[in-house]
Amino acid sequence: MIEISDTTLRDGGQAEGITFSVSDKIQIIQALDELGIRWIEVGTPGANPLDQQVFQLLKSAPPLRQASLQAFGPTCRPGQIASEDDGLKILAECGADTVTLFGKSNITVVEHVLRCSPEENLRIIQDSISFLTRHGICVWFDAEHFFDGYRINAQYALRTLQTAAAGGAKRIILCDTRGGALPHEISEAVRAVKAIIDLPLGIHAHNDCGLAAANTLSAVSSGCDLVQGTIGGIGERCGNADLCTVIPVLSLKMHESCLPDGHLPRLTHLSRRMMEIMNIVPNERSPFIGNSAFAHKAGVHIDGIIKDPDSYEQVNPESVGNQRRFLLSDQVGRAGVYARLGRMLPDLNRNSEEILLVMQKVKEMEAAGYTYENADSSFELLALDTLGRRPHYFEVADYHVLCQGSHGKEENWPTAQAYLKIRVNDQEGINAAEGEGPVNALDNALRKTLSQFYPSVKRMSLQDFKVRVLNAKGTASLVRVSIESSDGDHIWNTVGVSENIIEACLKALTDSVDYMLTRFVSREEISRVLHIPGRKEPSLSL
Amino acid sequence: MIEISDTTLRDGGQAEGITFSVSDKIQIIQALDELGIRWIEVGTPGANPLDQQVFQLLKSAPPLRQASLQAFGPTCRPGQIASEDDGLKILAECGADTVTLFGKSNITVVEHVLRCSPEENLRIIQDSISFLTRHGICVWFDAEHFFDGYRINAQYALRTLQTAAAGGAKRIILCDTRGGALPHEISEAVRAVKAIIDLPLGIHAHNDCGLAAANTLSAVSSGCDLVQGTIGGIGERCGNADLCTVIPVLSLKMHESCLPDGHLPRLTHLSRRMMEIMNIVPNERSPFIGNSAFAHKAGVHIDGIIKDPDSYEQVNPESVGNQRRFLLSDQVGRAGVYARLGRMLPDLNRNSEEILLVMQKVKEMEAAGYTYENADSSFELLALDTLGRRPHYFEVADYHVLCQGSHGKEENWPTAQAYLKIRVNDQEGINAAEGEGPVNALDNALRKTLSQFYPSVKRMSLQDFKVRVLNAKGTASLVRVSIESSDGDHIWNTVGVSENIIEACLKALTDSVDYMLTRFVSREEISRVLHIPGRKEPSLSL
Repeated sequence: MIEISDTTLRDGGQAEGITFSVSDKIQIIQALDELGIRWIEVGTPGANPLDQQVFQLLKSAPPLRQASLQAFGPTCRPGQIASEDDGLKILAECGADTVTLFGKSNITVVEHVLRCSPEENLRIIQDSISFLTRHGICVWFDAEHFFDGYRINAQYALRTLQTAAAGGAKRIILCDTRGGALPHEISEAVRAVKAIIDLPLGIHAHNDCGLAAANTLSAVSSGCDLVQGTIGGIGERCGNADLCTVIPVLSLKMHESCLPDGHLPRLTHLSRRMMEIMNIVPNERSPFIGNSAFAHKAGVHIDGIIKDPDSYEQVNPESVGNQRRFLLSDQVGRAGVYARLGRMLPDLNRNSEEILLVMQKVKEMEAAGYTYENADSSFELLALDTLGRRPHYFEVADYHVLCQGSHGKEENWPTAQAYLKIRVNDQEGINAAEGEGPVNALDNALRKTLSQFYPSVKRMSLQDFKVRVLNAKGTASLVRVSIESSDGDHIWNTVGVSENIIEACLKALTDSVDYMLTRFVSREEISRVLHIPGRKEPSLSL
Repeated sequence: MIEISDTTLRDGGQAEGITFSVSDKIQIIQALDELGIRWIEVGTPGANPLDQQVFQLLKSAPPLRQASLQAFGPTCRPGQIASEDDGLKILAECGADTVTLFGKSNITVVEHVLRCSPEENLRIIQDSISFLTRHGICVWFDAEHFFDGYRINAQYALRTLQTAAAGGAKRIILCDTRGGALPHEISEAVRAVKAIIDLPLGIHAHNDCGLAAANTLSAVSSGCDLVQGTIGGIGERCGNADLCTVIPVLSLKMHESCLPDGHLPRLTHLSRRMMEIMNIVPNERSPFIGNSAFAHKAGVHIDGIIKDPDSYEQVNPESVGNQRRFLLSDQVGRAGVYARLGRMLPDLNRNSEEILLVMQKVKEMEAAGYTYENADSSFELLALDTLGRRPHYFEVADYHVLCQGSHGKEENWPTAQAYLKIRVNDQEGINAAEGEGPVNALDNALRKTLSQFYPSVKRMSLQDFKVRVLNAKGTASLVRVSIESSDGDHIWNTVGVSENIIEACLKALTDSVDYMLTRFVSREEISRVLHIPGRKEPSLSL
């Protein structure tokens, strides 16, 4: 049994681009608890009033399942008595179950940064820990710079740990603060600590050499029984050990349980939810939880997976709640296109001419900046279109979008309006709408105009919206817009590309509506509008 | 001496979202050569006509400094004679210096995927390699699934390598194809191979357990003398060992030279250039080369770095061509703000009231969606503004932007026009411009109108343009626009936030122009326009 301590909210908050609101922190704590994390480092209430608020609010929130909350803070300063340190007093009263105090284990850092004698540093460690212990707090000692300290002066580094133990620390976290240690150094140092310290040990590894996961596993193999890390590996500089990597490796490869039984399949979903709360763009290539983690692109690999998934997957994607995907690209063979089209058009077979036609069209569109890897719905529509089987529900005849802004009239400006004319069969519909910006105005106008014909379109809403600038040519760049839509029951993704962001957006929006009408709207509603003698209603097995 | 083999163009091309044009491949080959990479795997000319073209074009290009080009392809199929395999014939004639042939080393994959007998697989390996060897080609054997194969049936896995050696292979690459091996397994298997095979060995590690770098280093420590990987770690599924991580660790931490002397500081610049060519968004947290790799955010860390850079940096950023950065955020203390403001406003000291004011303003703006971590210029302007010291060169009085599109008139549509009125002192300037899209039209109109007053603005151009959707509320989301501008001599970055993408863009654009006028335009040009009696020209030490 290896315990997990999450420091997403503390060390993760030290990552570039990350800022947490009180509500973010509370939502993340609840998600970590749902995942089954044992310890959660919430923040530094002594330095950050927001963290004090989090502890306050959590007192009246529903109790957590198994997670215990931890506060974090520094030992007192050189020359100062612990009982007179304001930060320590706040830590004593903040309501955390345990407090992690960080102090220095590297003699050089003591001399150059703390600028006090090695003995004074030991006094600081012991005094600070025993002050909190006397207040009934369970204290963990975070041995900052431990592995560097061990390399430079092992005896002194070990003495700081002994001092922490003498002060009453209940657990010691060994930190590779600069992220510069190699796995064999971690292993040697952990064994040396085990030999003289009779407390549970934790590992806190940074990723500056790309070795945070390996160093964490090395520490566990050498005797640490607690692993600290963050969701997505965020943290100061290059970040910390990524729990989304370390937990599956410990569980599936090293057979060390670290989550409650049956919780591992929650990992993908919950980690993605947390990244959404943090507004982090997830790394597609993240082991286990990444969108590409089980995505197969080379023809040889796809062929292998179809014959035996074990051939190119080291674990079952479902074991971590992820899923297998076959990608479409110029590299993909028939197997890949067939795997995606076969479900939709069961009358095709693997050797159909149609498969080739679709492959060519996809290549053409990819050359123009499209990508269908995350836009299944646009891909399906493209395939139907290429095969002459795409239903036509409407077309945009023309549109005008106007944005205006004026200095000094901020209360009413800027404004955005869109006018739109659509054709449905021989009828026309004209309407206009306002919006928060030009894209929103166009979206509103399109759905307003269309719902005159297809009332179900009212149910549809845009869930997410992404803009990617494809070729950096200043403001004249090619732009790809990806949108995620929902009708309450289903979620689907479409894409549009243009040098004009409005046009790119319109393409993604019309695909989105088309897809909804194709898949999720009753044939009765469609035929009321599209009832034309002699015209064959498209028949699809969708 | 450890040799490096880059497979960005081959295995990297199997990554989700990556597509190479012929020109991309050639530019990347030239950049890898400039970096000092010894071997470059170009692609699979037998399967991809584009790769044949690359080899053709390179014959007439200037010779590379030290890189040798490699082609990649499969051994022949079960039941087939090598001399009748079209792919092998193309490999023999493509012009590559060496050819890497991949074959199976895992008996289970032979049975389930190749679907032939273990003996037939050995025949395939030997026949394919000796066919190419007879044509005078230097062949490397890529032992696919080797580490899994060694775990399942070590004897058979080793026999595939012996067979490759008997066929005439000059080097053997041991592959952890599924990325599921742990460092100690890699080490054991490499030692076993070393004991019976007298050929140079390479390691090809995948990152499905987040251990590609660690496994690569483990293989080197156990006797491999060639390392294969990719720029940015891209590759099938979770990718390959990231050369941008492995090369610095080998060079700086393990003292194994793998680039020509003095080339390591080129790494950051060249790897970023290659990611630009590949249109990959670089991972900010990448060890060594990432934008955040030496970015310090916590107040304690910034304070430590100022006293002794070694305290929070495991290597000198300059050793890999990167640089140290101090970040601004709600976590940052006075030290961080002062480090950034002190250079610009030398009359401030660390305890100035002004530092606090700027910190508060930054927090306020961050809460509204701004981030100044990558927008130094907008930060400087914000600081000047907060302190009442921002010069005012112009203001946008009002603007109208119109986009129109019409179905069936693609040749002229969509269009985008912008009208703009600015005020400079008591004068007004009105102008209009067209553009590829609304943002480009607005940009054109702004610079056209302004250059009537400040001719230097004509020199300015937009280099890059990024759009980030901040809170996913469909098309009504808050949008952050970041732009990079240049006047030919300098590059600077600004940012704007709004629910309206046009407005967000205008904010970033006006900051950009303001910054150029503040820093890079002669005081003579400014004062010709802004000469007002009694008005004090802002004096800045910039």
